[in-house]
Amino acid sequence: MSARITPQTPALQALRMRLHAQHQPVVLMRTDCHVCRAEGLAPRSQVLIIAGDRTVQALLYQIDSDLLKTGQIALSEAAWDALDIHEGDLVQVRHPPLLESLSAVRARIHGHRLQTTELQAIVRDVVDGRYTDVALSAFLTATAVLPLDMQETIHLTRAMVDVGDHLQWQAPIVVDKHCVGGLPGNRTTPLVVAIAAANGLVMPKTSSRAITSPAGTADTMETLAPVDLDLDTLRKVVEKEGGCVAWGGAMHLSPADDIFVRIERELDIDTQGQLIASVLSKKIAAGATHIVIDIPVGPTAKVRSRETAEHLAHHLSEVAASFGLVLRCLFTDGNQPVGRGIGPALEARDVLAVLRNEADAPQDLCDRVALVAGAVLELGGVAKEGDGIRLAHETISSGRAWEKFQRICAAQGGFREPPQALYVEPLLATTSGRAVHIDNRKLSRLAKLAGAPESPAAGIQLQVRLGDEVTRGQSLMFLHAQTSGEMAYALAYVHDIGDIVKIEP
Amino acid sequence: MSARITPQTPALQALRMRLHAQHQPVVLMRTDCHVCRAEGLAPRSQVLIIAGDRTVQALLYQIDSDLLKTGQIALSEAAWDALDIHEGDLVQVRHPPLLESLSAVRARIHGHRLQTTELQAIVRDVVDGRYTDVALSAFLTATAVLPLDMQETIHLTRAMVDVGDHLQWQAPIVVDKHCVGGLPGNRTTPLVVAIAAANGLVMPKTSSRAITSPAGTADTMETLAPVDLDLDTLRKVVEKEGGCVAWGGAMHLSPADDIFVRIERELDIDTQGQLIASVLSKKIAAGATHIVIDIPVGPTAKVRSRETAEHLAHHLSEVAASFGLVLRCLFTDGNQPVGRGIGPALEARDVLAVLRNEADAPQDLCDRVALVAGAVLELGGVAKEGDGIRLAHETISSGRAWEKFQRICAAQGGFREPPQALYVEPLLATTSGRAVHIDNRKLSRLAKLAGAPESPAAGIQLQVRLGDEVTRGQSLMFLHAQTSGEMAYALAYVHDIGDIVKIEP
Repeated sequence: MSARITPQTPALQALRMRLHAQHQPVVLMRTDCHVCRAEGLAPRSQVLIIAGDRTVQALLYQIDSDLLKTGQIALSEAAWDALDIHEGDLVQVRHPPLLESLSAVRARIHGHRLQTTELQAIVRDVVDGRYTDVALSAFLTATAVLPLDMQETIHLTRAMVDVGDHLQWQAPIVVDKHCVGGLPGNRTTPLVVAIAAANGLVMPKTSSRAITSPAGTADTMETLAPVDLDLDTLRKVVEKEGGCVAWGGAMHLSPADDIFVRIERELDIDTQGQLIASVLSKKIAAGATHIVIDIPVGPTAKVRSRETAEHLAHHLSEVAASFGLVLRCLFTDGNQPVGRGIGPALEARDVLAVLRNEADAPQDLCDRVALVAGAVLELGGVAKEGDGIRLAHETISSGRAWEKFQRICAAQGGFREPPQALYVEPLLATTSGRAVHIDNRKLSRLAKLAGAPESPAAGIQLQVRLGDEVTRGQSLMFLHAQTSGEMAYALAYVHDIGDIVKIEP
Repeated sequence: MSARITPQTPALQALRMRLHAQHQPVVLMRTDCHVCRAEGLAPRSQVLIIAGDRTVQALLYQIDSDLLKTGQIALSEAAWDALDIHEGDLVQVRHPPLLESLSAVRARIHGHRLQTTELQAIVRDVVDGRYTDVALSAFLTATAVLPLDMQETIHLTRAMVDVGDHLQWQAPIVVDKHCVGGLPGNRTTPLVVAIAAANGLVMPKTSSRAITSPAGTADTMETLAPVDLDLDTLRKVVEKEGGCVAWGGAMHLSPADDIFVRIERELDIDTQGQLIASVLSKKIAAGATHIVIDIPVGPTAKVRSRETAEHLAHHLSEVAASFGLVLRCLFTDGNQPVGRGIGPALEARDVLAVLRNEADAPQDLCDRVALVAGAVLELGGVAKEGDGIRLAHETISSGRAWEKFQRICAAQGGFREPPQALYVEPLLATTSGRAVHIDNRKLSRLAKLAGAPESPAAGIQLQVRLGDEVTRGQSLMFLHAQTSGEMAYALAYVHDIGDIVKIEP
C-alpha cells in the first residue's frame, strides 16, 4: 500500500506498547488527539499509519489517560513490525483509501460470479491487511451460501498462489501430502517424508503449528529437530537429503490462506471450494508436482461421509489438473485418533517408536503411514502400482527410514529426544466393558488444558482403542503436564465433562 | 449471561484503562499471566469476565509490559460499565460458553430457513454481546445472499422487538414516521412532530444521532432543546404536549438493530428484509400504531428506482400488517438535499425558518414536511383523505406548529437558539452555467471534515439547487467551522476532490 501524505496530516510520535493481537495491527490514540479531531476518527475506525514509504492499516482505539502523552500514538506489535520503526519515530495517520474490491464482494453477495481480476483484487487486499473481520467473513460466507464454482475455485487458487512466495526445485517430480484434518494424533508426515526421501524422492514439506489443536506437525517435529528454517537452509536440507519437515509460517506461501483459515475456523465452515483453494495454493506455492491427499472419513472428522469424500476428491483432482498437478486421494478411517500420543512430544514418541521398529510401536500409525507413503511412492514413480505399501513397510523395517530421518534432523540443525513431562496421571475406567466411542473433540480440549502445545511435553497418551475390552480400574489414558496447576485444571475438566471414552457392558 | 465459577478460576484485580472501543468490551492481560496459561488463552480470544453475578464477553489482547502488574487485568469502558465494578475489584476470566446459536447461522449458510426459535436465540446472543464481528457478518451476509423470506422477516422483527424495552401509550392511535435515509439535510422530523401534536395526535419520536452522516435528527434537535431524556421524562413530555423529539440511544428499543446496522454500514449492504426488520422493530418497540415511511428515490439515495421502492413498500406493508400496524409509504424526490443546511445547527436553522414562516425559509423543506405530515395527519384520522397537505401547511402558516414546537422544547428542558460557527467561508463557482448535479456523498464528507456533528455549528449551507443558473464567482455554498484548523482541512478537501456541484454551460 502507498498513500500520499498531504501537508495537512500532522505527525505523531510512535510508542511501542508491546501489545499482542495476533496478526491484527492496533493503535491507541488519545481521545483529545488533534489528528482524531481533524480526521474525524472514532474508536474502532480503520486507520492508515504511514512511516516513510511503509504503511499499515490498523484498528484504532482511543484512550482517556496519561498513558499516552499529547502527540503520541501507541502501536501494537503487528503494526510496529509492519512499519519497521523505532521508538519515538514520527508517523502519520489518515483514513485508509477506499476498499475498492469490497464492491466485488458485494456483487458476489448479490449473486454475481467473480472473475479472475476481481478475485485477484480481493486476495491482494486481504493480504495487505485491508480486510476487516467483517469484510473477510462476508466474503467467505457469500462463497459458502452460493458455493464457489469450478472456475471461481481455480481463479481463487491462482490468486492465492500469486500473492505469495514460490519455491522452485530442480527435480522434475516433487511430492507432497496433505491430510484433510480433524483427527487428533495422526502424525504421519515426518514418517512419510523420511520414507519418500529414503527412496530417492524430493519432498520439501512445510507444515503448520497448532492453531486450535493440541499439536501441529511443526510443533511435533520441533521436539525432534529445529523447524524454524529460513528459505536458504530449507533449500540446502532438501538438496542434501531430499526431504525436510519445516515450519511453513515464515515462508509466506499462500499468505491469504492463513487469514481465511482463521475466519473459517471461527465460523466452523469449510466449504469444498475454499478447502480446495486453501490446500492446493499452498502445495503449488511450495513447488509440488505430485500430491497425495489423505481424507479421513468419520463422524467427528472433517469429512463425514464417503459421498462427500468422493465429491471432494473429484473436484480436487479437476482443479489440480488445471494447474498441471498429479493428485491422488485416499479415503481413510476417521473414527478414532491414530497413534497413542496427543500433544507434540507424545506424538513424536509415536513417530520414533515406528521409525525405530520398537515392539510396542502403535500399529495403526504404522499402517496409516504405509498407506499414505505407499501412494506417494507410487505417484512419484519409485514403486510400481500396488507395490507402494509393501515398499513403505520395507523402508521402515529395514531401518532406512530411521536413518534418513536422522540425517534430515541433522541437516535441520540436529536430532533431539522429545521432552518428558514432570507430572503424569492415569485416568481410570470407572466401569468394565467394551470401548465403543472416543470423543475426539474432548480429547483435543483435554490435551490443551494439560498444556499442549505451549508445553511440548504435555498431552495425552491413549491406552485404549475402539473395540478394546477394558476392566474397571484399568488406565484408559495418561495425562501429561508440566505444572501441577495445569494437571489440576485438566483433571477438573475430566471431572466436569464425563466420559471421553464411552464403555458399554 | 451467567457462568459457574469453579474453584480452579483464580481472580484478577480489575484496572480501568479508560479505553474507548465503542460497544466492544476489550481486556488486556499480561502475556505471562497464570490465568492465560491455565485457560489456554491467546491474543484475540473471546473471554468471559465474571464479577459477582455480572458477566461480559470481551476481546482479549495480551501485553508484555509493566503497564499491568502480575495479577491485574485492564478493562475497556464497555467492559467496565457492563460489569459495574470499581477500581481494584476482583474478576474472574474464563472461556466463554459455546455459542449454540451459531449452529443456526451455519445451517442458514447451508440454505436452511430459520425458524422463530432460532432467530430468537441468535438475536438474544447478539444483544448479549456474544457475537463477534465475524459471526455478525456471517449472519447478515447469509441472509443477504439468500434473502430473508416474508416469514423470516416477521420472525426476525418479532425477535428484535422481544429483546428490547417497549414503550406503551394510553392513546389508541400513536403515529410515527421514518425516512429510508441517504439524503443530507432532509430534517423533516421536528416539523412533522410539531404539526402532528398541534393537531392532537400522539407522536413520541425517538431518533438517532449521526453515525456516518454529518447530523442525525437527535443531533439537530439537540441544538434546539435537550434530547437526552430518560423514559420518565419522555413519558411526561408526551403526556403533556402529545409529542417529543428525543434521542433513542438510551432507550434500549430494539438494541439488536444498533448492532446489525454497524455491520451493514461497513459492508454497505442493506437488504430489504433486514431494512424492514430494522425499521419496524424500532417502531413497534416505541409503541407506534400508524406509521408513514418516506422513501426518497434517486441516484445517490438508498433506493434508486421506483420499482425497488414499490417492492419495498409492498413488503413493509405486509410485515407491518402481521403486527397489526397501519402503514403508508411515500415515494419522494431523492435527487438532491432537502433544505439548505447540512450539519446540526444549520439544519436546525432551516427548521426554525419554516416554523417561523420566515420569508427565505427553504421551500423544498416546507413542501416535503407538508407531504409527510399530511400523510401522518390523514393516517392518524385528523385530516380527511386528500386534505392532509393543506392542513399541514395551514398548521405552519398559522403559527400553531411553531407554538407547539416551543412547548415541546420547553417540556424537554427549554428551547434554545442553535449556535453560530466562528469561521464561515464561501465556496465560489469557478464557471458560469446551470447546476446539473450535486454529489450528496461529497457534501456529507465535506460537512464532516468541517467538524459536524461533533461541532454542532459546523457544516454547510447550500446556496444553489439543481437547475439554478449560476455566475462565475457566485457563492455555491458556505462552509461553517468552529476552528481554523478544521476550516483549512475542509478547504483542502474541496481543493482535492473537484466539483461537488457540477455546472454545465
